[in-house]
Amino acid sequence: MSRLEEKTIKTEKIFSGKVISLQVEDVELPNGKTSKREIIKHPGAVAVLAVTDDNKIVMVEQYRKALDKVIAEIPAGKLEPGEDPEVCAERELEEETGYGCKEMDWLISFYTSPGFADELVHLYIAKGLEKKEDAASPDEDEFVNLMEVTLDEALALLEGQKIHDAKTAYAVQYLQLQEALKK
Amino acid sequence: MSRLEEKTIKTEKIFSGKVISLQVEDVELPNGKTSKREIIKHPGAVAVLAVTDDNKIVMVEQYRKALDKVIAEIPAGKLEPGEDPEVCAERELEEETGYGCKEMDWLISFYTSPGFADELVHLYIAKGLEKKEDAASPDEDEFVNLMEVTLDEALALLEGQKIHDAKTAYAVQYLQLQEALKK
Repeated sequence: MSRLEEKTIKTEKIFSGKVISLQVEDVELPNGKTSKREIIKHPGAVAVLAVTDDNKIVMVEQYRKALDKVIAEIPAGKLEPGEDPEVCAERELEEETGYGCKEMDWLISFYTSPGFADELVHLYIAKGLEKKEDAASPDEDEFVNLMEVTLDEALALLEGQKIHDAKTAYAVQYLQLQEALKK
Repeated sequence: MSRLEEKTIKTEKIFSGKVISLQVEDVELPNGKTSKREIIKHPGAVAVLAVTDDNKIVMVEQYRKALDKVIAEIPAGKLEPGEDPEVCAERELEEETGYGCKEMDWLISFYTSPGFADELVHLYIAKGLEKKEDAASPDEDEFVNLMEVTLDEALALLEGQKIHDAKTAYAVQYLQLQEALKK
């Protein structure tokens, strides 16, 4: 088993924005040579697989500038500084969909792009959904359409690449697995 | 159904590196107001769920500077300009693991971080693995340890967050689903 770690020799901060920051690190490789690593820092995020009492998945249809495309995703959002992921999951679910929930359980946390970014997504499953009095109220620069779809409909959306992101693909496959395990 | 698209008013290029580039776009929102979007451009990548004849998953243990952590991932790598994803999948599998394969089938493509990046990962499943004469030869700044694990071992690695990224979590869950569907 060889040593794999890379030691940072120098860090150059390139950009600090409202969502991400970028730095380039000069690193010493395991063989003593040097290389550069381009690294995006991200505050981390939560995503919520919210399932209604009649077994529908709550999704938000949303334009993503990075993709120049409207896709359907499970509700998600960035962590505020110091925010507990479960609290964030409840907040994002209510802000984007208007739903509160009786149960919010952690499923998995994964890094989305370990090659260049430290973004960690915490995925939760929400059940016992209840519409709150007030409607959904996304961030002021966030525009979404709500959808509620069956598992079969979600699989068709995946097939048509309307669902097209890793966290949502994982969440839909999770439900498929639960269905298969029931049989 | 409301309009969701955002129109780019101005693009400021911040950084162009060997893996990613960064630009900030001033956009016009659906309500006529303006906002800024921080966007990472990435060439796209492939990942390969390679399964041996005795049903083990081939994984690479690798240090990720962005996470400052060694994790176990399925073999993966960036697309060269104009490269066909399936050709890239065969190339990366051989470079990182020394394996060629008789079958390489596309499973899914997903965006990893649609909120800020256009990275699209194409996931393939490889079967009929055969060690090539020459050993694995990763890129000159890439150091990896090979692992071959059963599905149960992969699930334990996930539990212990040694497997900790989205594409690998998806791939392991994919195999779990196939096992469940067999029963």
